[in-house]
Amino acid sequence: MKILIPNTIELPVTADVDAVVYDIDAEIPDEHRDAEALVVWHNSSSWLQEAARALPRLRLVQALAAGADAVLNAGFADDVRICSGRSLHDGPVAEHALALILSAVRRLDRLRDAQREHLWDGPFNQEQSAAATRAQYTLAGARVTIWGFGSIASTLAPYLTALGAEVQGIARTAGERSGYRVHADADAAAVLAETDVLVSILPATDDTADLFDADRFGALKTGAVFVNVGRGATVDETALIAALASGQLRAAAIDVAKSEPLPASDPLWDAPGLLITPHVAGNRPVGAARLVDENITRLLAGDDLINQVRP
Amino acid sequence: MKILIPNTIELPVTADVDAVVYDIDAEIPDEHRDAEALVVWHNSSSWLQEAARALPRLRLVQALAAGADAVLNAGFADDVRICSGRSLHDGPVAEHALALILSAVRRLDRLRDAQREHLWDGPFNQEQSAAATRAQYTLAGARVTIWGFGSIASTLAPYLTALGAEVQGIARTAGERSGYRVHADADAAAVLAETDVLVSILPATDDTADLFDADRFGALKTGAVFVNVGRGATVDETALIAALASGQLRAAAIDVAKSEPLPASDPLWDAPGLLITPHVAGNRPVGAARLVDENITRLLAGDDLINQVRP
Repeated sequence: MKILIPNTIELPVTADVDAVVYDIDAEIPDEHRDAEALVVWHNSSSWLQEAARALPRLRLVQALAAGADAVLNAGFADDVRICSGRSLHDGPVAEHALALILSAVRRLDRLRDAQREHLWDGPFNQEQSAAATRAQYTLAGARVTIWGFGSIASTLAPYLTALGAEVQGIARTAGERSGYRVHADADAAAVLAETDVLVSILPATDDTADLFDADRFGALKTGAVFVNVGRGATVDETALIAALASGQLRAAAIDVAKSEPLPASDPLWDAPGLLITPHVAGNRPVGAARLVDENITRLLAGDDLINQVRP
Repeated sequence: MKILIPNTIELPVTADVDAVVYDIDAEIPDEHRDAEALVVWHNSSSWLQEAARALPRLRLVQALAAGADAVLNAGFADDVRICSGRSLHDGPVAEHALALILSAVRRLDRLRDAQREHLWDGPFNQEQSAAATRAQYTLAGARVTIWGFGSIASTLAPYLTALGAEVQGIARTAGERSGYRVHADADAAAVLAETDVLVSILPATDDTADLFDADRFGALKTGAVFVNVGRGATVDETALIAALASGQLRAAAIDVAKSEPLPASDPLWDAPGLLITPHVAGNRPVGAARLVDENITRLLAGDDLINQVRP
């Protein structure tokens, strides 16, 4: 069995397969169009669409990204199994989420801007230490809500707890996960009303499209912080800009946008109090070769695959 | 006994004293020059020097800042006891240190700058995910050395451990503190040679003046990260700028500078890969009233004071 490995990552596969490294920026060579498995990492949407046409014997597409939505939308035949790299990104994404949360809460973006003006920001200093802002500028005592409470959230939540935050989750179904209380999304409005920091780790699905809209932002405590390390498709970006401009959101930080790379003309770039990072949260899959090996072995044995998202 | 309370913080003192609120930007009124205790928070150096002359009956100056160096240098009589607010800042300073460490490691400063140029930083994305930078851009597996291993470090270190870093300390004497190995500063060179991230939480003393100089930065692993939430007096700022310019340091973040507020003409502002925040790490003393009450009670009883740094 032939498996195509992208040239964007070192992937020492040990399974008994014919592993061929390919260039994600070039056409698939004719002699490798008999591949039965394809690993993708940083491939463009157009490349994926071409691959869906060019690989008639394909049985498995193994994405290394946490979300496989780009692969799901590429037009692969219905019987091709598609697996995500979800489990590979828990640590890196949780670390980046924590970095964005702390940056937004403590306003490192504003202080970086002041630095570029050679400005020692005295007014910020006074505002930060004023009696009225006692509950802001720190995670100690902050109520943090993580919407989308899977394995990344289970990694992130204890960091926030250690810093003194009260952490809770929202997911499709209520319950307790990893020791944290998770509310059903039907009860979101009441949860948001008590939320200082809202963190989204939601995938892009039909149900989550534009979930974070004017109503959701309006349901938060005034001056709340919003952080998105999930998918840009979940955010009504016009509503996000408006919530920042009105002060309903005090600050926000996003690692994802609806359109990536974000066009230079997009109004998001200049939204007040918004930090944008270019989808770098989970940029280093941890344990990718092990996952590929395991899924190839399972595929050959006819077993269920890890992280299978389709069919 | 009369105690002067600054107008820069709400401080509900319950000890049986005559508590008078004063304006840190005004002269001390004549009728309050009989005060025996003085609490200071955000007072200027010149105000403190004036207070040292204006309060002949003074027995205690209680600083709320973590370091009392400004008070120590103000010329108070030798028999005036000076206490710091060290213990009030463990949580806030540790949180800010973590924010600066994550920002420097994951280069949020560079990404903020790219954002202002409306630039989705593709080269950064590739550099971050390249095989050669496997040990960078993350705390997972990074060796973090905290120089100055007191109560702030004991709060910070577990956060870093949770994120996957290997944490060790340097202090005047070797030993184990809060479960972490602490090396004697005589052995610093060998420790720095294995350090990815160096965090300073040192106070300003004769021994620490310009401690972080060209030799110390040169002793670090090439491409290390430096973070300072201690005091600016500990850093040879010319050497810091040179280490960043040469790439010996990949990035740095400082909350303190030799001269505060940092003058607009200072070359630090534009040092490559440096994030500067305006001394806001410990900007919110936690438990200040309790400390003041306790030290007043002890002073009246003739007992040892908490956080006494002089005489």
